[in-house]
Amino acid sequence: MEAYLDNSATTRCYKEVKDIVVKTMLEDYGNPSAMHLKGVEAEAYVKQAVKEIAKTLKVQEKEIFFTSGGTESDNWAIIGTALANNRQGRHIITTPFEHAAVSAPLAWLQKQGYEVTEIPVDERGNLLLDKLAEAVREDTILVSTMYVNNEMGAVVPVEEVGRIVHEKNPKTLYHVDAVQGYGKYRIYPKKMGIDLLAVSSHKIHGPKGVGFLYVSEKAKLQPLILGGGQQKGMRSGTDNVPGIAGLGVAAKKIYENLEEDTARMRALKEYFAAELRTIDQVEINGPEVSDGAPHILNVSFLGVRSEVLLHTLEDRQIYVSAGSACSSHKRAGSASLGALRLSPERKESAVRFSLCEFTTKEELDYTLEALREILPMLRRYARK
Amino acid sequence: MEAYLDNSATTRCYKEVKDIVVKTMLEDYGNPSAMHLKGVEAEAYVKQAVKEIAKTLKVQEKEIFFTSGGTESDNWAIIGTALANNRQGRHIITTPFEHAAVSAPLAWLQKQGYEVTEIPVDERGNLLLDKLAEAVREDTILVSTMYVNNEMGAVVPVEEVGRIVHEKNPKTLYHVDAVQGYGKYRIYPKKMGIDLLAVSSHKIHGPKGVGFLYVSEKAKLQPLILGGGQQKGMRSGTDNVPGIAGLGVAAKKIYENLEEDTARMRALKEYFAAELRTIDQVEINGPEVSDGAPHILNVSFLGVRSEVLLHTLEDRQIYVSAGSACSSHKRAGSASLGALRLSPERKESAVRFSLCEFTTKEELDYTLEALREILPMLRRYARK
Repeated sequence: MEAYLDNSATTRCYKEVKDIVVKTMLEDYGNPSAMHLKGVEAEAYVKQAVKEIAKTLKVQEKEIFFTSGGTESDNWAIIGTALANNRQGRHIITTPFEHAAVSAPLAWLQKQGYEVTEIPVDERGNLLLDKLAEAVREDTILVSTMYVNNEMGAVVPVEEVGRIVHEKNPKTLYHVDAVQGYGKYRIYPKKMGIDLLAVSSHKIHGPKGVGFLYVSEKAKLQPLILGGGQQKGMRSGTDNVPGIAGLGVAAKKIYENLEEDTARMRALKEYFAAELRTIDQVEINGPEVSDGAPHILNVSFLGVRSEVLLHTLEDRQIYVSAGSACSSHKRAGSASLGALRLSPERKESAVRFSLCEFTTKEELDYTLEALREILPMLRRYARK
Repeated sequence: MEAYLDNSATTRCYKEVKDIVVKTMLEDYGNPSAMHLKGVEAEAYVKQAVKEIAKTLKVQEKEIFFTSGGTESDNWAIIGTALANNRQGRHIITTPFEHAAVSAPLAWLQKQGYEVTEIPVDERGNLLLDKLAEAVREDTILVSTMYVNNEMGAVVPVEEVGRIVHEKNPKTLYHVDAVQGYGKYRIYPKKMGIDLLAVSSHKIHGPKGVGFLYVSEKAKLQPLILGGGQQKGMRSGTDNVPGIAGLGVAAKKIYENLEEDTARMRALKEYFAAELRTIDQVEINGPEVSDGAPHILNVSFLGVRSEVLLHTLEDRQIYVSAGSACSSHKRAGSASLGALRLSPERKESAVRFSLCEFTTKEELDYTLEALREILPMLRRYARK
């Protein structure tokens, strides 16, 4: 059997997503910018996707902009805000465990003279919110945090962050990287004080190469990609109709039975964690299992290097990740685990299991059985 | 019957493209950055696409970088060059008939203090090459031209431009927007003196939402989208495996019978143009029919507004475009026709017919028949 437990890296597309992608590639393949019927037909797919997505967030349709994925959405939110608001200030606040799609553009802005403050976290990955309140200043133009940490599943209390930030400075924009949170939680930007929200399609069973950025109508943002003026001039380039239509279908589907699906995922994760704890020298990293996101579990198998375990599991068609799998630096150290100040032994043996709505108890039992067999063997080997 | 004559706006995907897209969405759906087998399998699709594309251009595989499409490729080439080379200079040369994906980032750079010079063109859209030679200076960091103009099919003598530019200043980079040229001409950047080359997938029967930028290994370019470090740090974001694989298949297929396909397209275009000339008050815009690209014909039907003609043809399932269909400003004036200094009457009545390898003589005959019937009617109406 096979156990795909790397759903935070990417997911298999829904069959319904595939159907609409095929339809828009072969039949309704027009360019939405074309004036004729084939253009209008193609445009209708884009409008439908906007509608479905706006509904999941309870925002206005004109606040949704499509991009090439989570990374572009995050880059745009950060650099676009910096460029549009640099007269108001050049100070930005973030966390020490952001995805590189956030931390890399922030590092670039630092080189351009922007100042970046990191809010400290405790050993479980919780933000120290009193430090956040202290950090917000008159010249703070942006606060950027994840919704769910991709490596350990820590959940940021975004509504509280939004409130603290805007109480301190109503002009500061709050950007949320919701790549791991969208489709797992009900996210309502208006209620939660979120001004910008980045989402990726391929983490929710949609196509790769597409995502969106929610931009509150009150947020000042410069476009990053310029050209034909598509998407009200905010993001040029021929609309990726198959990708956008597929994302629309995925967004609708993932929110259809959200509470039921995430409750089942969470129950499976808790079962898996409890079973893992019966194995020797196993440490669960990040938040309390019950506090973390429903789909992510980060575990250290002390004495076994994560890469070795990953490849041994792979031989049995069990797929997990070591560190974040969203980076091409496949062997790079983990930013999130670094922020938790874990021991080197614990970091080097950390593995991420990530579930989706299709994950079964059988897959987890198969994985547990494999771990019980493999770990003593690998530990003996490591000791030699 | 239906006649889709808007292939320069977008094309229908090849069936083989659809097949590989479906396979990588449902079966081989891994994240190429993942260390395990599912990642390696997905990565193999990307490597195969790189290989096929590099072969069509006779360049190195490491010189191909995937983007979200032609617009991102052009933006990256221009802004990335400006950011990486601003110590060498801030002068850029271009033409007056570029696509907005080139002219818009150039306009943005002008606001940042860069100087942009436009090479003049004659009334047929030919660049005045002696003016180009005069324009290249010590501080010229970039020359950016199209390969084939999207609206009128004028072909830029890129090899000559490359030679002139590099003779005058070997450090100047030459960027070619080949969105309408790739898949219609054999393009060899090394031989032609092209340092950067932008290509879009959906113009060659590949998926929307993907493209590539060829970057000569000697070109200094800054990345625009930062994050996980994919594509050697030059373009972050999870690789769009279905899109990239589909683009690879499309690139291979379109070059398989290139000479035969383009000769047939050209013969059809010349036949169509000759028949159009038997109709009253018809003017062909841009280059001599035999000089222009094989697939684009820009025609003015004097006395009939292009939008009116477009919609009348649409009623008979004939799809053409008025101006460039790659812009969401569906009614915006045409940059290319503006550059030719055509009379307002001629500009307002200009329609673009664009062919592809699947275009048949039957479609063109059907269109000619419709035009012969429609035009006298519309002209009578217009006179009232």
